[in-house]
Amino acid sequence: MKQQYVNLLLLLSFTSFGQSGVNISAIRVNQQRIESRIFELANFGKDDDGKGYRVAYTQGDIDGRAWFINLMKQAGLDVSIDNAGNIIGKRIGKDPSLKPIAFGSHIDMVPDGGNYDGCVGSISALEVIEVLNEHQVITKHPLQVIIFSNEEGGTYGSMALAGLLNNDVLKNISQSGYTIADGISAIGGHPDGLAAVKRKKEDITSFLELHIEQGGILDKENIQIGVVEGIVGIIDWEVTILGFANHAGTTPMDLRQDAMLAAAKLVVAIHDIITTEKGRQVENVGKIEAYPGAYNVIPGKVIMSLEIRDLSYQKILDLFKKIENKAMAIAASTGTKISFQQQNAIKPALTTKSIQDKIVQSAESLGLSYKHMQSGAGHDSQNMALICPMGMIFVPSKGGISHSPKEFTKPSDMANGANVLLQTILALDKE
Amino acid sequence: MKQQYVNLLLLLSFTSFGQSGVNISAIRVNQQRIESRIFELANFGKDDDGKGYRVAYTQGDIDGRAWFINLMKQAGLDVSIDNAGNIIGKRIGKDPSLKPIAFGSHIDMVPDGGNYDGCVGSISALEVIEVLNEHQVITKHPLQVIIFSNEEGGTYGSMALAGLLNNDVLKNISQSGYTIADGISAIGGHPDGLAAVKRKKEDITSFLELHIEQGGILDKENIQIGVVEGIVGIIDWEVTILGFANHAGTTPMDLRQDAMLAAAKLVVAIHDIITTEKGRQVENVGKIEAYPGAYNVIPGKVIMSLEIRDLSYQKILDLFKKIENKAMAIAASTGTKISFQQQNAIKPALTTKSIQDKIVQSAESLGLSYKHMQSGAGHDSQNMALICPMGMIFVPSKGGISHSPKEFTKPSDMANGANVLLQTILALDKE
Repeated sequence: MKQQYVNLLLLLSFTSFGQSGVNISAIRVNQQRIESRIFELANFGKDDDGKGYRVAYTQGDIDGRAWFINLMKQAGLDVSIDNAGNIIGKRIGKDPSLKPIAFGSHIDMVPDGGNYDGCVGSISALEVIEVLNEHQVITKHPLQVIIFSNEEGGTYGSMALAGLLNNDVLKNISQSGYTIADGISAIGGHPDGLAAVKRKKEDITSFLELHIEQGGILDKENIQIGVVEGIVGIIDWEVTILGFANHAGTTPMDLRQDAMLAAAKLVVAIHDIITTEKGRQVENVGKIEAYPGAYNVIPGKVIMSLEIRDLSYQKILDLFKKIENKAMAIAASTGTKISFQQQNAIKPALTTKSIQDKIVQSAESLGLSYKHMQSGAGHDSQNMALICPMGMIFVPSKGGISHSPKEFTKPSDMANGANVLLQTILALDKE
Repeated sequence: MKQQYVNLLLLLSFTSFGQSGVNISAIRVNQQRIESRIFELANFGKDDDGKGYRVAYTQGDIDGRAWFINLMKQAGLDVSIDNAGNIIGKRIGKDPSLKPIAFGSHIDMVPDGGNYDGCVGSISALEVIEVLNEHQVITKHPLQVIIFSNEEGGTYGSMALAGLLNNDVLKNISQSGYTIADGISAIGGHPDGLAAVKRKKEDITSFLELHIEQGGILDKENIQIGVVEGIVGIIDWEVTILGFANHAGTTPMDLRQDAMLAAAKLVVAIHDIITTEKGRQVENVGKIEAYPGAYNVIPGKVIMSLEIRDLSYQKILDLFKKIENKAMAIAASTGTKISFQQQNAIKPALTTKSIQDKIVQSAESLGLSYKHMQSGAGHDSQNMALICPMGMIFVPSKGGISHSPKEFTKPSDMANGANVLLQTILALDKE
């Protein structure tokens, strides 16, 4: 395997950095190879029912990573696994004084997930290396392909790179059944050395991630490339509505303190507030439970979830204030008490404007339609944004479906994204 | 014990039916005795935490019944247990050709229930016998005190009397942990002989039940006696709302098929339809669950319960039709599908008008305020109504609280109810 790396060094010396006569703006990725590798990777971690179960730290994840590492080595990358289990594939550049341009994504998946999600960005990152090799192009900057560990469990790998992963979380049980610590060990990391994983702000020139949109906007509007402006911030609340449980037959309608009615009015009000305000903010009430939960008892308590996402953290707080005010009015009119307990809060991560512009230029030069948009989902890039300039490229996801076996991105869309990734890297390399 | 019954027979013969010189309209129950017995009965079936757990067929139920049977025998009743476990206490009347006037209630309770519920009516029924004995009054009709078995589990005892208890239910597990069959055996019944329990339509002259209201109407309006017009019918539905589960961050608000939003709109619409229509109908949405039930996933499915109660079965069906129509509109506007699966349906049981009138006259003669009202809760009386003329008397229940340790009815209110029960029995006896 090391042999491949030696071969790359030989290539560098023999081709005088490989750029003589190559019009780099004309280099295109191999769509067929991307598609084949998507299908190959999908075979790792299928459960007995044929469902995708390449959950981080499971045997499927371990096998998929081994396959990927092998391909990286075949492509001449100098591959290592950092203490957090991230796979790092290094390619040297012409100027040893420059810090690397990094790019990549993740290959772990949610249970019963789809074959595209982080795989498109991971395989496309490798594809960039393959075509640069094929065209004997050596960039000025070193390149780094990063395959983050356990993205779906909570972007653990990139959190470690950003210095956000505390040792306390190591004892948590991951979806694989292993603790985070044991899981990291199982994929070749060293959980006792997480601090060493952290990159300094100046260690990476820029980070780029290609990902499927996971929403239906590009697909619906028939646009080829999403230029991500940022990854939304998220605040979660647990909402408790306290009424008075009572007999559903003997208590007249006007003598009730019905926590369910108050909850229902609140769900409708939240939707109205979020959709009335201009902007791309979204909300969700995904969980609800009524107590005691019987056909014939008026609910005395309802607990439900509330999540609001937006690119502006202040806007989330402003919207929540409106919801809270409306909740107080609903509580007063229904004889209930409504309280909000904040749970997780994730700050928005904006992408770097100059990188957005390079993505736009790349799309334009490739003749691809594009749209500026936000990412409503979290990504490893949000952590990378804390340590370096960051950009994200989206490709359409059919019907906006994600985290599902029905997830699908057309091969041509994957290739479009990979070409934009390639050209953006080359544009960044010129600086 | 049989001796007491012999004593009563002797009383009958010596007092020339006991009515010489007695102004029966002046007879009053002993409030102090009723209250003492409420407290005594409450001691049976307390769990380790001191909570009332006299669930049918448990040791507490068995002990409470033994205590009650002993009191019945001391009061001269001829006590037997029928095959369904109902306790029947017979007192002979002057005219052996007449069928008995029956009255009673139940002494079993829900887990962590209160001390009043069926106990007020049961102890008051015994109290009627006590004061008739004390005043040496023998009615023309035979009297029967009936303490129904397992009311809270689903009015099993009275269902057997009405011929509604099929043998299929015997294998069901009751709240006690025993099957219904084993439970009936444990309290002295014979589950293999249920058919023999059934009374013929002409076997009972009339049935009366005194019960706490279990709603807050009498308490709120400061009225002493409820003249029950009937026990409401109940129809239950399971409501399924199908949307499309999707990522709560990446799916714009206008591209959602949010089952939770549709469910919330439906809960509000049901409340509006039920409260806009004139009448005393009530509804409840007591159970709800969202699937998959995560903060960050738009619910693709919500399952919730719907219950409607009214004295008119047709009105329940008419209201449901309106709800169904509104649901179709909500489904169309939210991109969801809403379906209703009917579960249990219980027909309303109207009380007999002439008995209502006698209850009114009794209350008036006692100087008590009264109000005609419906029973929103089910009672053994609803089954008895199928085999004989039936009447129900309600007394206030503080704050409308029932099936709770906080349940409370004032001693004077219990005595008022027992006096109305007594005078109504005496009025029925005149016919």
